[in-house]
Amino acid sequence: MARFFVDALPAEGAVYTLSGENAEHARVLRLRPGEEVTLCDGKGTDCPCTVQPGGGLLAGAHAACPAEPALRVSVWIAFPKGDKAEHVIQKAVELGAAELVLFPSRCCVSRPEGKALKNKLERWQKIARSAAEQSRRGIIPPVRAVESYAEALTQAAGAELPILFYENEEKLGLRELLPPDAAPAPKGVSLMTGPEGGFTEEEIARAKAAGMRICTLGPRILRCETAPLAGLTAVMYALAEL
Amino acid sequence: MARFFVDALPAEGAVYTLSGENAEHARVLRLRPGEEVTLCDGKGTDCPCTVQPGGGLLAGAHAACPAEPALRVSVWIAFPKGDKAEHVIQKAVELGAAELVLFPSRCCVSRPEGKALKNKLERWQKIARSAAEQSRRGIIPPVRAVESYAEALTQAAGAELPILFYENEEKLGLRELLPPDAAPAPKGVSLMTGPEGGFTEEEIARAKAAGMRICTLGPRILRCETAPLAGLTAVMYALAEL
Repeated sequence: MARFFVDALPAEGAVYTLSGENAEHARVLRLRPGEEVTLCDGKGTDCPCTVQPGGGLLAGAHAACPAEPALRVSVWIAFPKGDKAEHVIQKAVELGAAELVLFPSRCCVSRPEGKALKNKLERWQKIARSAAEQSRRGIIPPVRAVESYAEALTQAAGAELPILFYENEEKLGLRELLPPDAAPAPKGVSLMTGPEGGFTEEEIARAKAAGMRICTLGPRILRCETAPLAGLTAVMYALAEL
Repeated sequence: MARFFVDALPAEGAVYTLSGENAEHARVLRLRPGEEVTLCDGKGTDCPCTVQPGGGLLAGAHAACPAEPALRVSVWIAFPKGDKAEHVIQKAVELGAAELVLFPSRCCVSRPEGKALKNKLERWQKIARSAAEQSRRGIIPPVRAVESYAEALTQAAGAELPILFYENEEKLGLRELLPPDAAPAPKGVSLMTGPEGGFTEEEIARAKAAGMRICTLGPRILRCETAPLAGLTAVMYALAEL
């Protein structure tokens, strides 16, 4: 079923007209009278609609989006090379991330700044929007960047359960941080992963000092674009959101 | 640490010379005397080696590869469009899949056959090998294809716990199939996912009849290249392999 994010939902019984990119998307989909579509306000509320002859959407009763997780997971990824960020953003939105934040770290080869970063963020936000529509999310997870590793640590460590995945950590696993019968479960988690070259030992020490829990993702070494998605999936599963 | 799959491991104390693609790979890595590398027989046994002046590898004591999961997960994916199969194969190997099997289904747009399939399988197997080296696996998971959906069902349903992920299943989740305190845990799992257009209802009925457990991956609709990796990660986590 087609899904469109709109600025404001029509009241039940009102007829809504799609505009801008949504109207274009609807044209591509060739919506027919009688078809069901969903409008979403991007704040977790859905409005089911029926396509009318002429193309207007007759609004039904509003309801909470059933696909939106109660758990809020922020996904922090060090700027990766090439178009890997696009891939991670698309998949993390499908998998239920609440927001994506990119940050520079010591081993980052790519460190977009200024106009280049602005353009990338615009592109990444479009990818997040499209992934949110496709996966039936109730929000469009924001994609943003911070200027320094220090700033990333400060913000990420503010989550109820702040986790940094490190390939050289051998003891602490997610299963220890997230015991299956934990009560109450955390409501906010941040997951931080490094670039292709990994984190330096000094960066790990700083993360610990900032309050991040340093955690392994198991004995298999995951690529920088695989680790955040594996971590996110495992956390979602462990906390009953999958 | 560099990792090479070889046909037969050298005895402890012997000096081994890399050949073929491994030798080429070693040249690219510019290995230096004193450096540690690992040879693996592809059957779960590792042999740590030290690079000698001249490039030979002095073999240490053999040991079981610590990254190889005890759980055997077969990942069954319907032929996807474009290069998505490459992506899924690479990531599934990193995440610990035991094998990858591609199969045709009703809504598959791509159905490679004959020479085209043979070429693809060769390419996919190379990707699996490279991902196994990078992620420190103890085997190179085989990548193969079956000719029909019927054959896929027969083989996949032979696993101890055979699961098919279906976007329209609303009740049965992985958490029900894999309770955290299950004893004994399954040792073999097959995970089956559909193509871009999903499975048809008739295909789901046939899968049920064949013995597959039809299971949801949660309320967010995952792309065909995301679903197998999310399912694999959740199963690995649930069964203590992550």
